[in-house]
Amino acid sequence: MKADFSRLKKAFEPECVVVVGDSKRNNFGWLRAQSTFKGKLYSVQVNPETIAGIESLGVKNYTSLTEIPDPVDLAIVAVPRAVATRVLDDCVEKGVNAVHLFTAGFGETDTEEGSQLERELIERAEKGNLQVIGPNCFGVFNPGLGLRQSEDQYAGTSGPVGLISQSGNIALSFSFEAHLQGIDISRSVSFGNGTIIDGADYLEYFGDDPAVKIIAMYLEGVKDGKRFLKVLKEVSARKPVLIWKGGRTADGEKAIAAHTGSMAVPHHVWDNAIKQNGAMSVTSMEELIDTIKALHFLPPVTGDGVGVAGGSGGQSVLVADVFYEQGLRVPQLTKESYDELASFFVLIGGGYPNPIDTGGNVNRLEIRRIMDILNRDRNIDNLVMIVSMRPGRSITLEQAEETILMLEDLKKETDKPIVAMVYFSTPAAEQEARPIMLKIQEKRNPRIFNHRAVRARFKKRVRF
Amino acid sequence: MKADFSRLKKAFEPECVVVVGDSKRNNFGWLRAQSTFKGKLYSVQVNPETIAGIESLGVKNYTSLTEIPDPVDLAIVAVPRAVATRVLDDCVEKGVNAVHLFTAGFGETDTEEGSQLERELIERAEKGNLQVIGPNCFGVFNPGLGLRQSEDQYAGTSGPVGLISQSGNIALSFSFEAHLQGIDISRSVSFGNGTIIDGADYLEYFGDDPAVKIIAMYLEGVKDGKRFLKVLKEVSARKPVLIWKGGRTADGEKAIAAHTGSMAVPHHVWDNAIKQNGAMSVTSMEELIDTIKALHFLPPVTGDGVGVAGGSGGQSVLVADVFYEQGLRVPQLTKESYDELASFFVLIGGGYPNPIDTGGNVNRLEIRRIMDILNRDRNIDNLVMIVSMRPGRSITLEQAEETILMLEDLKKETDKPIVAMVYFSTPAAEQEARPIMLKIQEKRNPRIFNHRAVRARFKKRVRF
Repeated sequence: MKADFSRLKKAFEPECVVVVGDSKRNNFGWLRAQSTFKGKLYSVQVNPETIAGIESLGVKNYTSLTEIPDPVDLAIVAVPRAVATRVLDDCVEKGVNAVHLFTAGFGETDTEEGSQLERELIERAEKGNLQVIGPNCFGVFNPGLGLRQSEDQYAGTSGPVGLISQSGNIALSFSFEAHLQGIDISRSVSFGNGTIIDGADYLEYFGDDPAVKIIAMYLEGVKDGKRFLKVLKEVSARKPVLIWKGGRTADGEKAIAAHTGSMAVPHHVWDNAIKQNGAMSVTSMEELIDTIKALHFLPPVTGDGVGVAGGSGGQSVLVADVFYEQGLRVPQLTKESYDELASFFVLIGGGYPNPIDTGGNVNRLEIRRIMDILNRDRNIDNLVMIVSMRPGRSITLEQAEETILMLEDLKKETDKPIVAMVYFSTPAAEQEARPIMLKIQEKRNPRIFNHRAVRARFKKRVRF
Repeated sequence: MKADFSRLKKAFEPECVVVVGDSKRNNFGWLRAQSTFKGKLYSVQVNPETIAGIESLGVKNYTSLTEIPDPVDLAIVAVPRAVATRVLDDCVEKGVNAVHLFTAGFGETDTEEGSQLERELIERAEKGNLQVIGPNCFGVFNPGLGLRQSEDQYAGTSGPVGLISQSGNIALSFSFEAHLQGIDISRSVSFGNGTIIDGADYLEYFGDDPAVKIIAMYLEGVKDGKRFLKVLKEVSARKPVLIWKGGRTADGEKAIAAHTGSMAVPHHVWDNAIKQNGAMSVTSMEELIDTIKALHFLPPVTGDGVGVAGGSGGQSVLVADVFYEQGLRVPQLTKESYDELASFFVLIGGGYPNPIDTGGNVNRLEIRRIMDILNRDRNIDNLVMIVSMRPGRSITLEQAEETILMLEDLKKETDKPIVAMVYFSTPAAEQEARPIMLKIQEKRNPRIFNHRAVRARFKKRVRF
């Protein structure tokens, strides 16, 4: 059936949510997740012992969906699959708008019973114009409304990202990690089998949703490749779309069949199709988050010459590699720049071909002057300052503050994009760098990044 | 000059160390770093005010190297470059064995003054058969002896790694991060310009040092490519050698010249040469550490069939991808295995083609039985169990303990390698997973890894 976006909107922005079949065994996880929900919340459960537990959470329980006094925008259904069809009948009768079917055991089991159940699901969805999310998934996350997929998720804030994930685990992990890195979600959906509403539908919907600025997808496969690519082309002309594709190999594809029952598509076919239709391909959680950060925080770049200052020698070498690999240049400076540098720069422990390796403390005291030289240099289109992190020897928040002030001041005098790049050589240093990165991101401009983000940013050359 | 290994040995395993020219401005960092040193430690400094600071650290100071009452194995020289030559003269007169020249401002500055200084250095080294480490570097780290490059480094333990790094920053970062991940160093050297003793010398030396089991190198370039490759071939026939090459691009190469004054070598030439001579190439700190962990902890693999159990659907897909990309297979199981799985496996929320996605809790209670089925399966050569980490929902150390006991018990019944793979989808989860990984690594067998390590391990197919 065709998705009905006016009804689907109520699944992402509901006023009334009902959890059907939450259980003690699940520690009432679905109801607990909605403890932050700003709208009306009800429960449906028939077991008297379970009902006592639900009411102790302060949630009103009914023994049937049809008894709910309000119109139901979204029903979160977590019943055993044996009773799923009966619950769907109730949803149709009640005129429920959208159903998140957490229940698994449908087509993905590759059994006659599962397939029969899937047919019954489709029949009911069509009959009641039910917008069914799933089955076999974690459903909707709208942190601004406090509608969550897990009680561990944040609530009360909203960010630029619309996430569409075929895996519940990845939907949850992304929400946790991106939040730690200062990137929040406005809407997210884990859609599992995507029996009724599939990836292309969510993509089209997010394309029209003004709250979504950047679309991120984790996909294992698509139902209708032609339609998906058509939607992708339309949407990615308006908003950045990033696609992380699981099942890139023959063995990964086999695993997909058991996971969400999707048909796999050969990796190279995907990659080409994604690129041709204006989207970006990523291959890991880190790359996905870094790319989003780059798109969200980095200003458009007008030329490919990069001037880099700060950091130590080893970092300068690696950073120059990273820029070059992305098709940028870390070019020679003009004679005027070199002459001025020669007048004060201490070469012992440092060097200034570009990257300008400030080495010891003497040159670092002149960092503003060095940045000014890069700013005036006609070979340089982008200004990058390296902020180094090393486990046990990190800069303090106060020192970061000084750097921020200096760069904000510089920004008043230039139109060249300024990037403060947090360079960390180890995962432990990345953890330590987190408060510094957040601090600088808070200011929005200048923006701060790890070296992977540069790599990510410069993927989409067309945006410069 | 040719390195003298009997003398170089005294630099890595000194009994008497002298720090020349440590300063208040440096907060006496070189002397503080040696506070853990088990041998004799002296200082040489002429400034009376500075001497007071040094003696307050409990270190005996002399105003000249020649006054030191003991034979000096290693002199750590941190004087301004203007007096470096005079100190080297003293080293020759005193018969010092090896010099770590922290002082920078030699050939890497590309100035006449620097080059002149470098010639004077070479002259003195040859005259006194001085084993000079550097200049422009952080020198030697031998944690077992408490000889350190920084007071932040560990001491009192020793591990399998011999690290040779042209960058001091990378030498330090590696020591911190690898230690956090349970991988320690036996000897490490940051050698900067490598004017007297270069990368090939250290490689040859570590090849002969029985305390070094695995050699890791961060290189920017080599002086004599032919000799380096000859040594590499000899050494990598005896021990694994991993090489991380900075300056892989044209812009990175330019940065190298200013950093350590090395001549760069085109990336593809390097990669081919490294491979042909039996070493492994890595391109990041993470990959370097993961590969070392894989080499250190993973048993040899006798076949390419991998049986995977545990984890959730999305993870199964990504893990299957990772194995496939490394030339391994996650094959179909035998009919006998599938028949037995069908007798008890709950397909709702899970699936068992291989990877066996245990899904919900019901199947996880049967994890031992599932591992036994994989063990008996003739298509399977390696047993992998996924231990999932998710921020906010991690397994506890107690749960990890149960897994360890189960796998140790299984190990008694099989010759197939068993890997407990800690799968984390985000950097934050990696941090949370750390105590679990260390806990399982402690047992040495079964061993635990993140998914990158699998990738790393299967690089060197020849070792299976």
